[in-house]
Amino acid sequence: MTVNLNGVVRMMGILLIVLACCFLPSLVVAIIYKESVSFWSFMLTGISCAVIGFILKKLTRPSLALKARDGYLIAALGWMLASLVGAVPFVISGAIPSYVDAFFETCSGFSTTGSTILADIEPLPRSMLFWRSFTHWIGGMGIIVFMAAVLPSMGISGQLAASAETPGPTLDKLSSRYSDTAKKLYLLYTAFTVIEVILLLFGGMSLYDSLLHTFGTVGTGGFSSYNASISHYANPYIHWVITIFMILCGINFNLYFLLGKRGGIKSFFRDSELKLYLGIIFVCSLLITVDLLATGTYDSVSDSVRDSAFQVSSIITTTGYMTADYDTWPTFSKMLIFLVLLTGACSSSTGGGVKIIRVLVSLKMVRRGFSLKLHPNRVVTLTVGGKEVQQEVATNIANFVFCYILVAFVGFLLVSLNNLDLVTTVSSVLTCLGNAGPGFGQVGPALNFSILSDFSKLVLSLLMIAGRLELFTFFMLFSPRYWNSNKA
Amino acid sequence: MTVNLNGVVRMMGILLIVLACCFLPSLVVAIIYKESVSFWSFMLTGISCAVIGFILKKLTRPSLALKARDGYLIAALGWMLASLVGAVPFVISGAIPSYVDAFFETCSGFSTTGSTILADIEPLPRSMLFWRSFTHWIGGMGIIVFMAAVLPSMGISGQLAASAETPGPTLDKLSSRYSDTAKKLYLLYTAFTVIEVILLLFGGMSLYDSLLHTFGTVGTGGFSSYNASISHYANPYIHWVITIFMILCGINFNLYFLLGKRGGIKSFFRDSELKLYLGIIFVCSLLITVDLLATGTYDSVSDSVRDSAFQVSSIITTTGYMTADYDTWPTFSKMLIFLVLLTGACSSSTGGGVKIIRVLVSLKMVRRGFSLKLHPNRVVTLTVGGKEVQQEVATNIANFVFCYILVAFVGFLLVSLNNLDLVTTVSSVLTCLGNAGPGFGQVGPALNFSILSDFSKLVLSLLMIAGRLELFTFFMLFSPRYWNSNKA
Repeated sequence: MTVNLNGVVRMMGILLIVLACCFLPSLVVAIIYKESVSFWSFMLTGISCAVIGFILKKLTRPSLALKARDGYLIAALGWMLASLVGAVPFVISGAIPSYVDAFFETCSGFSTTGSTILADIEPLPRSMLFWRSFTHWIGGMGIIVFMAAVLPSMGISGQLAASAETPGPTLDKLSSRYSDTAKKLYLLYTAFTVIEVILLLFGGMSLYDSLLHTFGTVGTGGFSSYNASISHYANPYIHWVITIFMILCGINFNLYFLLGKRGGIKSFFRDSELKLYLGIIFVCSLLITVDLLATGTYDSVSDSVRDSAFQVSSIITTTGYMTADYDTWPTFSKMLIFLVLLTGACSSSTGGGVKIIRVLVSLKMVRRGFSLKLHPNRVVTLTVGGKEVQQEVATNIANFVFCYILVAFVGFLLVSLNNLDLVTTVSSVLTCLGNAGPGFGQVGPALNFSILSDFSKLVLSLLMIAGRLELFTFFMLFSPRYWNSNKA
Repeated sequence: MTVNLNGVVRMMGILLIVLACCFLPSLVVAIIYKESVSFWSFMLTGISCAVIGFILKKLTRPSLALKARDGYLIAALGWMLASLVGAVPFVISGAIPSYVDAFFETCSGFSTTGSTILADIEPLPRSMLFWRSFTHWIGGMGIIVFMAAVLPSMGISGQLAASAETPGPTLDKLSSRYSDTAKKLYLLYTAFTVIEVILLLFGGMSLYDSLLHTFGTVGTGGFSSYNASISHYANPYIHWVITIFMILCGINFNLYFLLGKRGGIKSFFRDSELKLYLGIIFVCSLLITVDLLATGTYDSVSDSVRDSAFQVSSIITTTGYMTADYDTWPTFSKMLIFLVLLTGACSSSTGGGVKIIRVLVSLKMVRRGFSLKLHPNRVVTLTVGGKEVQQEVATNIANFVFCYILVAFVGFLLVSLNNLDLVTTVSSVLTCLGNAGPGFGQVGPALNFSILSDFSKLVLSLLMIAGRLELFTFFMLFSPRYWNSNKA
């Protein structure tokens, strides 16, 4: 076993200290709303985290010799630990009495899935709902990226762990100065957050609700403080603001840095992944609008356009907010929603799913398949946006897609033991694995995950983390090869 | 356009003559059962086919210069033509009045899918039911392979067309003397047919029913002469005979030729695809048996074992016969059935689906994915059964799987216009594309496809042929590159 245990434990210690700090905003909310039970729950958990964190840090020595393999372990363990710890205040305060439920909810929060086991959200203490939504904000850009941004001293180990956290298919090389990148990413992320909060305040939302729904939007999470989600608000302005911010946060964040450069807007819109992403949103919204009007599901064109655009954006970015119960729409519209549930958003965005770039390369592989059948001896290159895709990258994408299918099927089988109907079983797995939030059937957008058994909830919790870490990082730990690296 | 039109038209002419001969057994059945309307329907169609076929043959000259691209056109057009012509007697005789329905039924027959639009099968004339099942027998081994077997003079053009018909992933090279191979395949196929007929006669089945159900078994088709399919028979012996023959015909036929050689049994069972295929059947049957008993769905262990083994074998081999309505089983069992519906049988068998060898290579790619993540700079080879899988073959398999997913999604969208529930929509597409037969929901094993709209039936008919020809051969014709080969 060549894992650098000292380094991994040290990083877990640092993570616990960072987590303790993450409770601070919720503490403030508890003070404002005079929620003493919640206050002490956050205090107790936060202090325990900090103390254990400092002890772990004291017991270990600074370690710079971390390798890629340690990065996987740090990312996977870190996310598990954050979810296990983040669930504690819910249980202590009695807001969510069952630890399994609280763990599900916290995994759903950090992984920005947004599936909930709460049948009735509204009676929860406001500071608890704040914490629940704040996990979206932290998880959106990545827990480890967050650590790297606030602790530049983490250096290379931080970069390794962060790239294990957001492994997305990299057609270009990573920046070598990772801490700077992490800081720039968080600056942009914070800017989006501030702007959306202001815009929502203009729409007549309270500051508290604006913050919560902004965390849910920019993190592409989907937790709301209302049972009716965004349909709680009748104001179309609010729907459109959230639609636009969901779409913005589903875009590769690295692309935004282009905008500052000369000719940036042109190269921004020349990005193949972005074009396909916006194209899918536009075409699917249009088709659903037409379907809803043609079948008489909607009478008003503007309502139909708004709800179609909202739901397509909500699901493709894997946010999961809802303004309309798409499970009652005609099958054609439902199928389009199901389709974008699988594709997900752009790589290096806060969204989940398979990711548009992988879909794009897969489609190109199909096209190349035809060329290869016609001209078996000709070399047919795979290009995206004029650039050649290395065979290695294409193979990685194929490996990822197969792994995704495999994990989904294992999930189907495990959740099917719950003996719910096929649509519920399949869609609950896909929506959790893709970090979207709502599914179809008994886990449809107007319903929740409370009907599931504890076993199913645990399976889905792990799938949420696995999906967020893009599978390999998470499942690496279950691979015998990981622990037997000295062989071959 | 560099397609050899002369050669393609000539092959269509020959195909029509062969098809005319294929009506002969049904004519005999019509005479035996004194079904004069059916008799004249077959006569009229058969004579027209023969006349047009001879005219086409006279108008063209023998052409040896066929290329791979012509092979695709011959296979795709040939299957379309066979289904269009094979549907005619159903319509003329009034057995299936709608031509769309008759086309669906014939596509289902030739492609060995076994989905039916007949809500009530039993009142049909016996010769019509015979023809319906006989299409399974012809389609099982392949229409073009059949032509190559009976017309050795077809030579290299026959081989090209036949390999476009059964393109399966070839890890080994094809035999160069194709006509001999085709003859050997048909000899083996006929031997299986004769043995199963005899065994079913022993079980008390009539000769007529034995023939029909044997055609449905060895062709892994699934048409029965009874509404209740195989559950019409109470005799467990019959269930087991059919189970065994379904499994046997889902095995790569080329493997059987090993058995005659020295040490053949050993190398037969050393085949990786076969091991996985038998493993899946065993494990899934076992899990379903336990699930059915544990949930109290079944009381009798022997019934549970028999129905589990039957349904798993029926679906994995994409036959589609039923002894039990699996749509009423617990979700875990249903999910296992759904899983084997997708995997399908072995390559170069009469079964459909994605094929076990592709599943195996895909699984190996996932495993390699983990190795590559851990050791990005190491060369990790992909091996199946100790032999290295060429990168090219792996890429082809990835292309195929992506194409399969793409076609399935296009199918979902088109059939969803029918506005049936999600389970019916998705499963009807997957069962037709995989040539299995029954699905779930409103197209479950105890039901049929009569509720679908004509548009859906046409889409599914084309998917059945596309699935049977393993996608590329069929969709090649819709690819602009196919028709513009002179361009780069």
